[in-house]
Amino acid sequence: RDPLVIGGRSFRSRLMTGTGKYPSLAAMQASLKASDCEIVTVAVRRVQSQAAGHLGLLEAIDWQRIWMLPNTAGCATAEEAIRVARLGRELAKLAGQEDNCFVKLEVIPDTRHLLPDPFGTLAAAEQLVKEGFTVLPYINADPLLAKRLEEAGCATVMPLGSPIGSGQGIRNAANIALIIENAKVPVVVDAGIGVPSEAAQAMEMGADALLINSAIALAGDPPAMARAMAMACEAGRSAFHAGRLPIRTNANPSSPEVGRVGS
Amino acid sequence: RDPLVIGGRSFRSRLMTGTGKYPSLAAMQASLKASDCEIVTVAVRRVQSQAAGHLGLLEAIDWQRIWMLPNTAGCATAEEAIRVARLGRELAKLAGQEDNCFVKLEVIPDTRHLLPDPFGTLAAAEQLVKEGFTVLPYINADPLLAKRLEEAGCATVMPLGSPIGSGQGIRNAANIALIIENAKVPVVVDAGIGVPSEAAQAMEMGADALLINSAIALAGDPPAMARAMAMACEAGRSAFHAGRLPIRTNANPSSPEVGRVGS
Amino acid sequence: RDPLVIGGRSFRSRLMTGTGKYPSLAAMQASLKASDCEIVTVAVRRVQSQAAGHLGLLEAIDWQRIWMLPNTAGCATAEEAIRVARLGRELAKLAGQEDNCFVKLEVIPDTRHLLPDPFGTLAAAEQLVKEGFTVLPYINADPLLAKRLEEAGCATVMPLGSPIGSGQGIRNAANIALIIENAKVPVVVDAGIGVPSEAAQAMEMGADALLINSAIALAGDPPAMARAMAMACEAGRSAFHAGRLPIRTNANPSSPEVGRVGS
Amino acid sequence: RDPLVIGGRSFRSRLMTGTGKYPSLAAMQASLKASDCEIVTVAVRRVQSQAAGHLGLLEAIDWQRIWMLPNTAGCATAEEAIRVARLGRELAKLAGQEDNCFVKLEVIPDTRHLLPDPFGTLAAAEQLVKEGFTVLPYINADPLLAKRLEEAGCATVMPLGSPIGSGQGIRNAANIALIIENAKVPVVVDAGIGVPSEAAQAMEMGADALLINSAIALAGDPPAMARAMAMACEAGRSAFHAGRLPIRTNANPSSPEVGRVGS
Repeated sequence: RDPLVIGGRSFRSRLMTGTGKYPSLAAMQASLKASDCEIVTVAVRRVQSQAAGHLGLLEAIDWQRIWMLPNTAGCATAEEAIRVARLGRELAKLAGQEDNCFVKLEVIPDTRHLLPDPFGTLAAAEQLVKEGFTVLPYINADPLLAKRLEEAGCATVMPLGSPIGSGQGIRNAANIALIIENAKVPVVVDAGIGVPSEAAQAMEMGADALLINSAIALAGDPPAMARAMAMACEAGRSAFHAGRLPIRTNANPSSPEVGRVGS
Repeated sequence: RDPLVIGGRSFRSRLMTGTGKYPSLAAMQASLKASDCEIVTVAVRRVQSQAAGHLGLLEAIDWQRIWMLPNTAGCATAEEAIRVARLGRELAKLAGQEDNCFVKLEVIPDTRHLLPDPFGTLAAAEQLVKEGFTVLPYINADPLLAKRLEEAGCATVMPLGSPIGSGQGIRNAANIALIIENAKVPVVVDAGIGVPSEAAQAMEMGADALLINSAIALAGDPPAMARAMAMACEAGRSAFHAGRLPIRTNANPSSPEVGRVGS
Repeated sequence: RDPLVIGGRSFRSRLMTGTGKYPSLAAMQASLKASDCEIVTVAVRRVQSQAAGHLGLLEAIDWQRIWMLPNTAGCATAEEAIRVARLGRELAKLAGQEDNCFVKLEVIPDTRHLLPDPFGTLAAAEQLVKEGFTVLPYINADPLLAKRLEEAGCATVMPLGSPIGSGQGIRNAANIALIIENAKVPVVVDAGIGVPSEAAQAMEMGADALLINSAIALAGDPPAMARAMAMACEAGRSAFHAGRLPIRTNANPSSPEVGRVGS
Repeated sequence: RDPLVIGGRSFRSRLMTGTGKYPSLAAMQASLKASDCEIVTVAVRRVQSQAAGHLGLLEAIDWQRIWMLPNTAGCATAEEAIRVARLGRELAKLAGQEDNCFVKLEVIPDTRHLLPDPFGTLAAAEQLVKEGFTVLPYINADPLLAKRLEEAGCATVMPLGSPIGSGQGIRNAANIALIIENAKVPVVVDAGIGVPSEAAQAMEMGADALLINSAIALAGDPPAMARAMAMACEAGRSAFHAGRLPIRTNANPSSPEVGRVGS
């Protein structure tokens, strides 16, 4: 009764996860289950090239239950990303999702901090929208870039909290708040979240969803962390709806003076 | 299988709540239920004096299920607190908890920020321990004060995150971390938590439990916030056990270079 | 002996200031003097249109001593900004600075938070560089945008700490640190700084210079704040060169155990 | 014209420094000079025991210009601290300061984090005040402890920002703000400050003075850092008096709409 709607498709869970960096396929399977997620992102190029940890990955996931979000990780230019997005559509078809045109768009020329290129991202997004894709672009938390991508027809925006896999948390909360304030499409906080408190924080701010991969896959106990993230995501969403108590400068006693001893 | 043990008594839930400031008794009842808490603190003086919102309070709670934690709110000196603690024991007996000697010890001469007096708190704690109470003292986050209270026989320490009812969150995380590092008794973070992310943060740091009242009672939708806090508390605890990913300065890509386009 | 070099021109002071929002021209004059700044930015459109507070502004500044930095405030598109930059060059000439081709490039379609448009900014920068301008673009703290502007020939990049005039301080320190790490041109932190500690913080991180206007003009005592900012800017720069002590988890006593009483 | 008054004695500088941890006596001398400080704290026990780095220390400082602040570092109990305070008075006399009864009171049983004991500190303070000392106690940032020490006749309170020598900065700003709000004696932030921005921050909050040792002595270039700290201290104090601009949620443009292009 509070569904996440992306590209006309409705999801119950607001926590998306990924498939990279897990110690084993079994740990991944257990974690996806524990996370109760409905959307899982898959690195198209890595599946294709059967990179380490990606062999057998597709077969390990129940695509009847999980919606595939192909991503363009490893693409440094708009052209590469457009090409890989098209391959992703094929991948989804192979997994039995004929109508899946989702793509998590990553255009990342920076190999050190894996930060996305705003210009290549916009160019690729415009082309992919034209081709009928449901585009979820990965971006630096720039409010005007987010707006521009929304106007270009993107289905969400996915600002990063801090660099991929860094676990530094949300280092740019002010900008993410501005993006949320202005967006008419769902805002998915992607990258940087390391612990459940940070997941809850993003949702309390009004983010519509989260994508968390490294914090789960690289935790000491991935399935336990997956479940913790799911709870935190839901807790943050509930708090956003429930409405927090006002922040006060002074303390606020639980009762009037009448309760004081001696009164 | 990860019980909270205080004074030899075992609890499943690590979230304690209170009874003050609720818009109605019905809202309180629904919130206690949604929080799934097992320990509820009650202001002895306010119940006795039937302060606003405290009439019928005792009868509104199922003391078969909920363990009463009488508190000495409204006491400015050790003497007052000792006297009220004894009354609290009677209150617990009236509620059918014959063996309940718990007391949340508050010695608060400061009416503006409701900060506790370390000297009065220690003096009262020493006397109450002598009298056989299970003492849970409310304190400023001073690591040496915490240690001293532990040595005096207190069953927990309850450092505040920020002033009571202020909703400012955990403003002294470094000190709370030092208390946790040194404590052999459970550390309960009490006061200041405003949103689930802050609840999770405290638990991720290794706190053993939380006491949250205002953030629930004064939320727009108290039962929804109560449930959110319960989830966040559990999420934080799970993450503490699961072990977080390391924080890195650089990004950490999901795959080796082999996955890059063109390679 | 540690000059700031922009577009081949050398400056001793690393604090730039502005001319807007002052209670009076006299307060502005006293503040510029107290700040010991050598670069002052001027809103070309506001001077031209003789907006409130801008009448007589040009005559109030000693352009023999102060280098003018015309800015394109009030421009929502690249085209407007290019046109206003050209007017700015005329303004500098009128002030006797024949060889001044500096322009602080602002392309700001957002009237609420005054955040810059990365696309319009890049387009205008490319054109202005072609026309021989020394371009100092005002940007959101996006490391890849900063790099792209540098590659386009900009003389500096000017990331914002938080929205103009908000006084929120540096809300995106992680991104600014990445910009500094990668930049080969000077990085000038512009907008958001509210107090001297924030000015010092930016310089300690390795920023090359600061532009501070509102925090001075809207302070209770503008000239006093101007001098405080100048000191903080210099303090932060000195600390950056001096090298800070390492951050430690534990305390570090001043002496070996031999000094302990009883040893 | 804005003197710091402690125990009836007036000081121009608000930055106190120490003598420990310097790479050499020469570096210490140059740093004291660069800091422009008037008060220097000396570890009585270390001077007495001629601990490493303390040989010749007394002779290296010009006690005509610098006021000695003997400290009781190395004392774990009130009794030890009282004894060492008395020795400190002798030390000041030896240095020609007949009327110097100042003592920086440290009662530190914790050898790992060097956190002070509130109980031992109060006991020692009460005795030393009785004996005519001007007592400056080093404390955890507990507002009620600070008040109690003030009531006991202490001349200042010296809350720590974070553990000694840790360089972690001010990790408990909310509590220090409460201490400042309530204090009638000068509040000196002691321990934890690592960089000038943190020094300025404390002063902007309304602290009356700072004591900085490790951040200077362990910097790459101690005299340069000493001067930077002096500037930051003064900048923060000036800003405190000047009055900061209000923090705003939205941006605040430099001019009315009339200045917008096209208007």
